[in-house]
Amino acid sequence: MASGRVAYLNGDFVPETEAKITLFDSQNHVGDMVHENTRTYGHRPFKLREHMERLYNSMAVVEIDCGLTLEQLEEVTLDLLNRNEHTLAPEEDCFFIHDVSRGPHEYYAEAFPEGLGPTIGIYLWPLTSILAKRAKEYDSGVNAVIPRQRHVPARFIDPKVKSRSRLHYQMAELEMKRWGPDAWAILLDEDGFLTEGTASNFFLVKDGTVLLPEPRNILRGVTRQTVIEMAEKTGIAFVEKNLEPYDAMTADEAFFTTTSIFMMPATRFNDRPIGDGEVGPIYRRLANAFIESIGVDFIEQARVCAERLGVNEKGA
Amino acid sequence: MASGRVAYLNGDFVPETEAKITLFDSQNHVGDMVHENTRTYGHRPFKLREHMERLYNSMAVVEIDCGLTLEQLEEVTLDLLNRNEHTLAPEEDCFFIHDVSRGPHEYYAEAFPEGLGPTIGIYLWPLTSILAKRAKEYDSGVNAVIPRQRHVPARFIDPKVKSRSRLHYQMAELEMKRWGPDAWAILLDEDGFLTEGTASNFFLVKDGTVLLPEPRNILRGVTRQTVIEMAEKTGIAFVEKNLEPYDAMTADEAFFTTTSIFMMPATRFNDRPIGDGEVGPIYRRLANAFIESIGVDFIEQARVCAERLGVNEKGA
Amino acid sequence: MASGRVAYLNGDFVPETEAKITLFDSQNHVGDMVHENTRTYGHRPFKLREHMERLYNSMAVVEIDCGLTLEQLEEVTLDLLNRNEHTLAPEEDCFFIHDVSRGPHEYYAEAFPEGLGPTIGIYLWPLTSILAKRAKEYDSGVNAVIPRQRHVPARFIDPKVKSRSRLHYQMAELEMKRWGPDAWAILLDEDGFLTEGTASNFFLVKDGTVLLPEPRNILRGVTRQTVIEMAEKTGIAFVEKNLEPYDAMTADEAFFTTTSIFMMPATRFNDRPIGDGEVGPIYRRLANAFIESIGVDFIEQARVCAERLGVNEKGA
Amino acid sequence: MASGRVAYLNGDFVPETEAKITLFDSQNHVGDMVHENTRTYGHRPFKLREHMERLYNSMAVVEIDCGLTLEQLEEVTLDLLNRNEHTLAPEEDCFFIHDVSRGPHEYYAEAFPEGLGPTIGIYLWPLTSILAKRAKEYDSGVNAVIPRQRHVPARFIDPKVKSRSRLHYQMAELEMKRWGPDAWAILLDEDGFLTEGTASNFFLVKDGTVLLPEPRNILRGVTRQTVIEMAEKTGIAFVEKNLEPYDAMTADEAFFTTTSIFMMPATRFNDRPIGDGEVGPIYRRLANAFIESIGVDFIEQARVCAERLGVNEKGA
Amino acid sequence: MASGRVAYLNGDFVPETEAKITLFDSQNHVGDMVHENTRTYGHRPFKLREHMERLYNSMAVVEIDCGLTLEQLEEVTLDLLNRNEHTLAPEEDCFFIHDVSRGPHEYYAEAFPEGLGPTIGIYLWPLTSILAKRAKEYDSGVNAVIPRQRHVPARFIDPKVKSRSRLHYQMAELEMKRWGPDAWAILLDEDGFLTEGTASNFFLVKDGTVLLPEPRNILRGVTRQTVIEMAEKTGIAFVEKNLEPYDAMTADEAFFTTTSIFMMPATRFNDRPIGDGEVGPIYRRLANAFIESIGVDFIEQARVCAERLGVNEKGA
Amino acid sequence: MASGRVAYLNGDFVPETEAKITLFDSQNHVGDMVHENTRTYGHRPFKLREHMERLYNSMAVVEIDCGLTLEQLEEVTLDLLNRNEHTLAPEEDCFFIHDVSRGPHEYYAEAFPEGLGPTIGIYLWPLTSILAKRAKEYDSGVNAVIPRQRHVPARFIDPKVKSRSRLHYQMAELEMKRWGPDAWAILLDEDGFLTEGTASNFFLVKDGTVLLPEPRNILRGVTRQTVIEMAEKTGIAFVEKNLEPYDAMTADEAFFTTTSIFMMPATRFNDRPIGDGEVGPIYRRLANAFIESIGVDFIEQARVCAERLGVNEKGA
Repeated sequence: MASGRVAYLNGDFVPETEAKITLFDSQNHVGDMVHENTRTYGHRPFKLREHMERLYNSMAVVEIDCGLTLEQLEEVTLDLLNRNEHTLAPEEDCFFIHDVSRGPHEYYAEAFPEGLGPTIGIYLWPLTSILAKRAKEYDSGVNAVIPRQRHVPARFIDPKVKSRSRLHYQMAELEMKRWGPDAWAILLDEDGFLTEGTASNFFLVKDGTVLLPEPRNILRGVTRQTVIEMAEKTGIAFVEKNLEPYDAMTADEAFFTTTSIFMMPATRFNDRPIGDGEVGPIYRRLANAFIESIGVDFIEQARVCAERLGVNEKGA
Repeated sequence: MASGRVAYLNGDFVPETEAKITLFDSQNHVGDMVHENTRTYGHRPFKLREHMERLYNSMAVVEIDCGLTLEQLEEVTLDLLNRNEHTLAPEEDCFFIHDVSRGPHEYYAEAFPEGLGPTIGIYLWPLTSILAKRAKEYDSGVNAVIPRQRHVPARFIDPKVKSRSRLHYQMAELEMKRWGPDAWAILLDEDGFLTEGTASNFFLVKDGTVLLPEPRNILRGVTRQTVIEMAEKTGIAFVEKNLEPYDAMTADEAFFTTTSIFMMPATRFNDRPIGDGEVGPIYRRLANAFIESIGVDFIEQARVCAERLGVNEKGA
Repeated sequence: MASGRVAYLNGDFVPETEAKITLFDSQNHVGDMVHENTRTYGHRPFKLREHMERLYNSMAVVEIDCGLTLEQLEEVTLDLLNRNEHTLAPEEDCFFIHDVSRGPHEYYAEAFPEGLGPTIGIYLWPLTSILAKRAKEYDSGVNAVIPRQRHVPARFIDPKVKSRSRLHYQMAELEMKRWGPDAWAILLDEDGFLTEGTASNFFLVKDGTVLLPEPRNILRGVTRQTVIEMAEKTGIAFVEKNLEPYDAMTADEAFFTTTSIFMMPATRFNDRPIGDGEVGPIYRRLANAFIESIGVDFIEQARVCAERLGVNEKGA
Repeated sequence: MASGRVAYLNGDFVPETEAKITLFDSQNHVGDMVHENTRTYGHRPFKLREHMERLYNSMAVVEIDCGLTLEQLEEVTLDLLNRNEHTLAPEEDCFFIHDVSRGPHEYYAEAFPEGLGPTIGIYLWPLTSILAKRAKEYDSGVNAVIPRQRHVPARFIDPKVKSRSRLHYQMAELEMKRWGPDAWAILLDEDGFLTEGTASNFFLVKDGTVLLPEPRNILRGVTRQTVIEMAEKTGIAFVEKNLEPYDAMTADEAFFTTTSIFMMPATRFNDRPIGDGEVGPIYRRLANAFIESIGVDFIEQARVCAERLGVNEKGA
Repeated sequence: MASGRVAYLNGDFVPETEAKITLFDSQNHVGDMVHENTRTYGHRPFKLREHMERLYNSMAVVEIDCGLTLEQLEEVTLDLLNRNEHTLAPEEDCFFIHDVSRGPHEYYAEAFPEGLGPTIGIYLWPLTSILAKRAKEYDSGVNAVIPRQRHVPARFIDPKVKSRSRLHYQMAELEMKRWGPDAWAILLDEDGFLTEGTASNFFLVKDGTVLLPEPRNILRGVTRQTVIEMAEKTGIAFVEKNLEPYDAMTADEAFFTTTSIFMMPATRFNDRPIGDGEVGPIYRRLANAFIESIGVDFIEQARVCAERLGVNEKGA
Repeated sequence: MASGRVAYLNGDFVPETEAKITLFDSQNHVGDMVHENTRTYGHRPFKLREHMERLYNSMAVVEIDCGLTLEQLEEVTLDLLNRNEHTLAPEEDCFFIHDVSRGPHEYYAEAFPEGLGPTIGIYLWPLTSILAKRAKEYDSGVNAVIPRQRHVPARFIDPKVKSRSRLHYQMAELEMKRWGPDAWAILLDEDGFLTEGTASNFFLVKDGTVLLPEPRNILRGVTRQTVIEMAEKTGIAFVEKNLEPYDAMTADEAFFTTTSIFMMPATRFNDRPIGDGEVGPIYRRLANAFIESIGVDFIEQARVCAERLGVNEKGA
């Protein structure tokens, strides 16, 4: 591969094509790993510290000791970014992934005479194609769809721990393929409350107030927290509460947040328009507040990506 | 590594140390894969067909097309076994793992100019060290312990699909470490019914009848089915029903089944003796029926392994 | 019938005795309809707009298009009221019902050569006899009783959509008949939280604060909202939270709200006194605030009705 | 309307176009009614007695006394059939509906000077157009689809009582419209078990055994019972048990039963083939056993209806 | 007191009026005790061994070691019976209670210089007044009533362990007082299934088959087991399954079993007749089978008791 | 016994060794009683009024009338304290217990010719040995451990009513014995939320805010309320919300409250450190605020007790 990108793997920087893990690794056994997904704005990582803190919380819960301090891992991350920055166009940003597993399973100890230990993999990837695909949706909004797949309640597998035991996300995604390319899943929990998307948080707006699901059966997203900060900054009220499909059906606006996309408006809910079916004013105010604070117009950036890649209106 | 073993990876046979998958693989993303675990008795795979049928059922549910027919995959498996047989001692058996993922995530399509597609990995491993560790427990029985971690109900992630989204198993295992080396987890479901171990099925015996949890919140184990067949063969009654801790506390016998270990007696439940605290007669009859039918004394085999490796009474 | 009242039925004003719908109508099939219940104070509809907005939300959820805009339906309603006003005594008020169904079921299309389409029925009825029955209870308070029938959780049938699929209400009412004429059902949800009456909302008062069930497993009543406004107006604190029978058993006051009755004090809970068993001061302050704002003393109105009809103390 | 058909309404036989009920009827208030749906084979009602027994059970539960004995109502039904038989072609069959409500709500007593009392409506309708629509599906099978709408658990509203409080059925039907004309809903209960369709029972076949959901969160269908009898007659094993989507995904066959359609094969489950995707042998044996016993080939009858009405392959 | 009866208390036989336990006993703290209730027929204890086995199971679960073997406790019991037999009339029987607690709480060790240890109390009581009160009900049957109080699910407090943590029974009993003297509570579990009475098991009869709740959320009664044996003996079919109120409302017969009363017919369910509202033939056959096997006519015995005590028809 | 202490029993003051209740008492039958636990600071009862109010609420719920007014019972309590004060060293405090049962069960009426009626028992006990055992833990903090035993949901047995039906507490305590002497149980409810200890409330501290479980599945502790008052007094924010194990695992501090111990820091959670594993600053501020307000240094008091009794570091 000619990308020129390198990845970090257990202490080494290797070409990304060589960043591979053995089939004997514990993460292939019982999903025994945790991870993070961070992105850059203007080539600088956004809230890397918050992501690292969450990663270390996740490691604590599943009792993996990665062998590095938080500060060391942060440093490695910045080093990795530095080594790859020349592969990014100036207007191009990237996301990077931290994967930390317990390492090769003890069953196979004999195959690892150098000893067992955690596996740390970090790699980055330009956001260009991902953003390009979504560029039009910043204008039209997506279709928030409730799949029949329910979210796993936190008392069984806690979504606040960002792990890879997420087959239910994949099952929800498979359903979405039947609903069309702009369908984004919003999963219900066992009580019928709105939780989150398959890697995103969900928000409603009603009568000028931003409504968020309680941070219980969801990942407590760094981007979610950023939107709360933008609400505080712009004087928009927000409330965390149990939200139901009825609330979405009678809302004025809705949107998703993800690390990569930041804020994506949802203008339909199960194929029916939310409010007047247009991207709403609260979304715009929050988005603009963020653009101002970060100095990168993430919507414009997506349009540029789309143009560059020649992506058409359908996102294909 | 000098093991001489080879693994199968996407059409090729490679040294097992080179059987690696890229970090970009979908199975590292949302646990988007399924697998099987089969073993040999006397160097012949046991019920390979049943394992392959379950694997293809699993693939159907998660909508992965591995590109091979069941028969082709079976043939590949036998070929792999053949290529590795010389590495096994005559009295030594092995298990082998089939891992099938959706392949590299479409996000990273650009890094795979040859195109995306499923990842099939198959590898085998001698049972010697695993059996050696458990040899003494065939005599003493293990301690079946209920962890506070509950099983994920089937309506969220179906345990009948053998996937890697099993962080809850790992969490239960972490609890077991606090209970001692012979503690085997037996997870409760949300209703408080006994389900299964972290990779095993569980049985009780009461008044001469074998009691099994309903095949609902469990993997429908091939070994479990084999024990049912042995019960039929030896005229021992068996019933599938909802079982509770009270049933275990007042049972006469209990045991686990797994592919590798076959049947492991449990002589304690949460540290307290089951029945008279000894391995029971129904266990012995079922085990003997199997030994007779398969021609391999799996308990004796474990003792031989332990002797060979010099494993002591504590299994360490 | 000599009432002189007319009803609205699919575009026509007809004598109320002729306001009938075919057995083939979809609302007789699967309860496939929504409705509203509004009342007048001083011959003017109270918060008609809020009721119409809820009706249109209900129609959106069940995907019935009634063929009229909200404004048109409002106009029809006022017209209907106008045509009937002469039948009301000056001091007499009425309620009116909007019933909107999907119309005749498509099975029977052949029987409707003019084509299928929604059924809109609107009729009104004087409040006199209903108020007369309850007049004494404004003084004595009613007995709030928990029936064994639980409320249907919102994720199955959402009570926020005012539909006719309410057999569980009827079952609760049948239980109440065994408790006596002043028993009002207050249903628990599956978690044991207080929800609502069979067509009413429920409130507690504790240490001067008004406590309301979270607006989740209940209809979000227009009258309920009015009481919140009266609390705001009079400086009485109020909190929406999960309430339990224990809270009712240890409350200082309790009351129900309905469109027809406005606020009805509950002085007993499962036959035992609430607080000192008397109508409480917070109830009186809220009731008075409303009387002042609307210009109609609803309690006095009930007494007048009772006198006129010669209803005795037992409400019979 | 020129159908010539008459309906029964509270003691009278009236033209079906005049079979109307007042808006004041209790069944329009809280779905306060029960009903039955029976059909004829060769102009004779099929298991009318069983339907009437279930109707009287339903009335007992909701405490409606219809004023007639079971035998009287049966007689009225046969009389009604007799009066309408001349409207049916010789090869044409019909279904008939019994609707029994508590009658006008006591609120409106004054409008019914003749007194309050139950409303009994019975009407019939030729099966021709309904069967015609489904004719092709007897050959191709339908698509059994799980909607996101869950079934209301029996402890809230018992589906064994055939009432009209079925908005959740309508919500499921609305989802099906998005899946295509041959999608039939099969609802899950809160535990994720398969229950029933929106007016049908559901069956699986696995390894030659017919599997039925436990008769708990379903209507105990008269046709369902008939299929059990056909299984007994033909020596096909059947078991009632908790069934899950996994069971449907790995089944050999599936089918629905309804009064009108009798048995409809389902050859897909959530768009994926069941077994080999063809109508299966067990279905055919059961269907043939019934055809033999009743003397009417219900599949052929549907084809005749389709031809007569010129219905095309899509059922439109 | 002049009863002349003695009780057993921690090794001693004392007059029953002196059989007292300190307030410091652990059973007064967290209900930390287990017990049994056995009765005599013709002055001989009935199935004492089965009761003692259950008691020892209960002690094992709560980890109380009473210091005596099962055989020793049995012997003590027979001794106690022997010492009291002279106080019973020849035709009079009695029940006796075994109470075993963990003894004084360790907090208060200092108050027990002789050391801490379990408290064993056994006392007996003539059945005369209890039977007398129920005599008429053997003829008329009782009213089985579902209280709003639900049974505690077994995963929280297991009803199979006969403990004193039964406040929910008392709450159900308080409700029954409002329903009249012949109301017997039959509690629902969280799923809406019938479980048991407040110290009794419950049975239905439908189409000649005896139906029992699954032995899950109930005490597995010794009398319940006896009725199963009588069914086997008389060739009456019986099935354990999940039973619902609908099953009771449409049953032919129903009855309760308790140690003292043996079998009590229930002829009403929530005030409505079960079947024809009379004691049914299956009840009679089972009762007669027991009378024959035990040699005591328990119904006649109750009548004799009533006569002796002059109890009137109302049981008061 | 030479303690010299007297207890109150049904109107009399008796030596505590003679404070005994008959085996026939209803509290030995179905846990049919309620109670309170109050303590002194400097020989004066702390918030006796609040404890008495809760006791009277408990009695109202279970419908026990103790025959005394709240004020009378308070007076009796102070009298009892007065009579016992001479037995306490000046620096020594005590707790006292109010036990109120329904009295002897009506079954045994004949044994109580003086008539049936409630049993009121009140006794006190010096805190010395209890505090001595815990003295070191005020410095080191305890280990908050989640047992597999879940809390009984309030809709089955309400923990807000302080009753003795608490076998689940005892079961949790038995588990704790396996975790070591400093393990304190913190029970989860059925939803996986943190509730309370076996006789204590639980608190977290995160980012300077005190977090409390919602007062739903817990006793609403008087000490808990006192801590809230201390937070208000010292300007520390506090929030009642649903808390999960994840919140405890990522908290900065944690502590328990009980009547006897007041506030006990928890420095570990399931064996892993909370925050830095040390007693935290918010704990200290709240404790100091209380010490200042009450004039007794409860931590120092425990140290004195330990010294006096010569208790070592392990609390043994």
